[in-house]
Amino acid sequence: MRMYDIIKKKRDGGELSTAEIEFFINGLVRGDVPDYQASALCMAVFYRGMTERETADLTQAMAESGDTVNLSCFGDKSVDKHSTGGVGDKTTLIVAPLAASLGCVVAKMSGRGLGHTGGTVDKLESIPGYRTALSPEEFFRQVEESGIAVVGQTGNLAPADKKLYALRDVTATVDSLPLIASSIMSKKLAAGAHSIVLDVKCGSGAFMKTPEDARALAAEMVKIGANSGRRVSAVITDMDRPLGTHVGNALEVREAIEILHGRGDAHLREICLTLAAQMIALSRGVSHDEALALVTAALDGGKALAKFREWIARQGGDARVADDPSLLPQAAHCREVKAEQGGILTAVNAETVGTACVLLGAGRAAKDDAIDPAAGIVTAKTVGDEVCPGDLLATLYANDESRLDEAEKRYRAALTIGDTAPAAAPLVYGIVGPSDVR
Amino acid sequence: MRMYDIIKKKRDGGELSTAEIEFFINGLVRGDVPDYQASALCMAVFYRGMTERETADLTQAMAESGDTVNLSCFGDKSVDKHSTGGVGDKTTLIVAPLAASLGCVVAKMSGRGLGHTGGTVDKLESIPGYRTALSPEEFFRQVEESGIAVVGQTGNLAPADKKLYALRDVTATVDSLPLIASSIMSKKLAAGAHSIVLDVKCGSGAFMKTPEDARALAAEMVKIGANSGRRVSAVITDMDRPLGTHVGNALEVREAIEILHGRGDAHLREICLTLAAQMIALSRGVSHDEALALVTAALDGGKALAKFREWIARQGGDARVADDPSLLPQAAHCREVKAEQGGILTAVNAETVGTACVLLGAGRAAKDDAIDPAAGIVTAKTVGDEVCPGDLLATLYANDESRLDEAEKRYRAALTIGDTAPAAAPLVYGIVGPSDVR
Repeated sequence: MRMYDIIKKKRDGGELSTAEIEFFINGLVRGDVPDYQASALCMAVFYRGMTERETADLTQAMAESGDTVNLSCFGDKSVDKHSTGGVGDKTTLIVAPLAASLGCVVAKMSGRGLGHTGGTVDKLESIPGYRTALSPEEFFRQVEESGIAVVGQTGNLAPADKKLYALRDVTATVDSLPLIASSIMSKKLAAGAHSIVLDVKCGSGAFMKTPEDARALAAEMVKIGANSGRRVSAVITDMDRPLGTHVGNALEVREAIEILHGRGDAHLREICLTLAAQMIALSRGVSHDEALALVTAALDGGKALAKFREWIARQGGDARVADDPSLLPQAAHCREVKAEQGGILTAVNAETVGTACVLLGAGRAAKDDAIDPAAGIVTAKTVGDEVCPGDLLATLYANDESRLDEAEKRYRAALTIGDTAPAAAPLVYGIVGPSDVR
Repeated sequence: MRMYDIIKKKRDGGELSTAEIEFFINGLVRGDVPDYQASALCMAVFYRGMTERETADLTQAMAESGDTVNLSCFGDKSVDKHSTGGVGDKTTLIVAPLAASLGCVVAKMSGRGLGHTGGTVDKLESIPGYRTALSPEEFFRQVEESGIAVVGQTGNLAPADKKLYALRDVTATVDSLPLIASSIMSKKLAAGAHSIVLDVKCGSGAFMKTPEDARALAAEMVKIGANSGRRVSAVITDMDRPLGTHVGNALEVREAIEILHGRGDAHLREICLTLAAQMIALSRGVSHDEALALVTAALDGGKALAKFREWIARQGGDARVADDPSLLPQAAHCREVKAEQGGILTAVNAETVGTACVLLGAGRAAKDDAIDPAAGIVTAKTVGDEVCPGDLLATLYANDESRLDEAEKRYRAALTIGDTAPAAAPLVYGIVGPSDVR
């Protein structure tokens, strides 16, 4: 088998065999397939696409290219949740204990963030004492005993994806549905959960700009799941504005705790209930509505909060934060951003809010940058709100005072103030489940 | 400027600016643009093509990426000839002295062959004493005094093309009209001639399989010439069967000498007259018919043969070969291939004849292989000829007797014997001149 022939076959619109896809991925990882052949193939895939079978094979080959987590001892109960990423997305902190409180097993590896704000692991590390690095034995014991553990990604998970993504990133071959879908799903398959709920974001702050694009990506990933013997569904949610009111690591933990107390931002609550309901629906095989009733009761009855406390304590963290968020890191400096003109807030650009957070120190510009866990933004007004001159728009937090001016300027640039309220956009655009792609 | 943006622009169907193309080519040569970005761009060009302006810019940038030969002192008189390559193609040995005998300046650099048989330089080296390596001073002095010199390619001509071609060759991005055309033309522009006649082959033994494809490539190259201030025309010729009766290095010199004596294969003679007429037509600005009358007279009147003798002697070779070809290397062994069945020879596959020649030792399988100058094939029957059992089909020559069996098997595989004569195909499919592409 020759890589040249594989590229040519795809170039001319052919369907690659399982053996050809495995030859490519194994060769890429071993270094036998040079980068210039891999990038040429990715560009051919950009134009020619991949069939459902090819995409599933590519995902499987990448998932098997390194370490894999075996959660088969938990049977149907293991469930994972993945978000395609957005500003202010703290849903894992809420839905993981919520699903675990209903008997799901959430054995989760999460990444650190690059860009807007930290990843889930960065957020959890803002909780005093929380250990994001557990040994495999500790990880499994905790999952067995508590039904939940969330750690930083360790080991060599899907190295083929890592290598291929780095290459796609510099050769303008990221924007290919089968390549995006297989990249995400390869890591999820390697992480071992039997059921996987995907939160596919769309809007100005997301990779997918329109609900149609997000739905196409969702369908692609759900199909991969079906072809790989996993139960996968995808919830398509809005990321035209930041999710919730808090953006920044400790600030997002604080907001998550609000939701776990049955309070807080209604949008964030709705999305969390939808995601958690899908986790229950998939793992228990019940309808979404039944599952929604279960998770709503678990959230409002305090079961999820109790599981949160147990989880944080089990993993070394100070569980008192669940009832006293002032124990979380707090910034030395803050800045109130007030309205200079009146009108209606018609847009809050999520991506710009994200970069304002990076300016405050809440996110990383480069992989090894340190982040300020206390830095971030709490918004006071959101899309559709009326604003009078002098009204508080948001409060910015940072330990480095010198960062406030630039961040304020950036935050103001994220806002559009107009005359008429925009039409209300849905929060959840839809759910794509296994039965939708058959 | 970023290579990423250049790839993305072409990927999405945009037209690259001159500056962007120069950034790519200069970066590629300097090593700033990595191979994986170059191959991704080539694949995007494969799908999106290039405008006439982009193709001209790419050619120019590659032509200027290394050494260039300055023939401006010869004004309109300098003329080059290039063949896209075929089996038994010894036209340069005939048309170069023919054009020079009519006042053209043929200052030519030729390559060595890889594949079928040797290149022009390998053929010339079979003439005892012929020096294919001249110093630049010797080269120019000879050109000034004799109007003709043919040497091996020296210096660093179009290194960008060399690098890009090597990359395209292993990434299935060779088959792109603008990339093929710019690759050929970049070397021709760097070689400095004011007029360039291209012999674009089509058929089973050529890269372009159909006259339509050959015509498209021809038009692309003629346009590049027009955009680069050169006079370029292309003659589209048949390569469905080997050209002439002799294939192999010294054997082809022998056949060229036959033609220069006004004898020999009528097909080969016709193609040489057409090519030489175009060389005269372009450099003197006369019509093809006028030029054809001039070159026919020069060939039949012995002027071309006289120039051949002068050229070979001037370049250190034994010019007596022009009148006594037995002075050329002769093989120690030969094998007569005789017909086993009767019928009409309906096809002689040029590519298969070429591989039979490689088996005899006449061509190279790898870049540094030595070649046997005496090895090769002389055909006795060609397409359309009637064949009776026992008739001589061809004679194979080799210094290594052990190669004859395999080569005979391969040569027989090149032949198709049937019942009815095939329709006569044209030898010259047409000429694409500067006025045809405006």
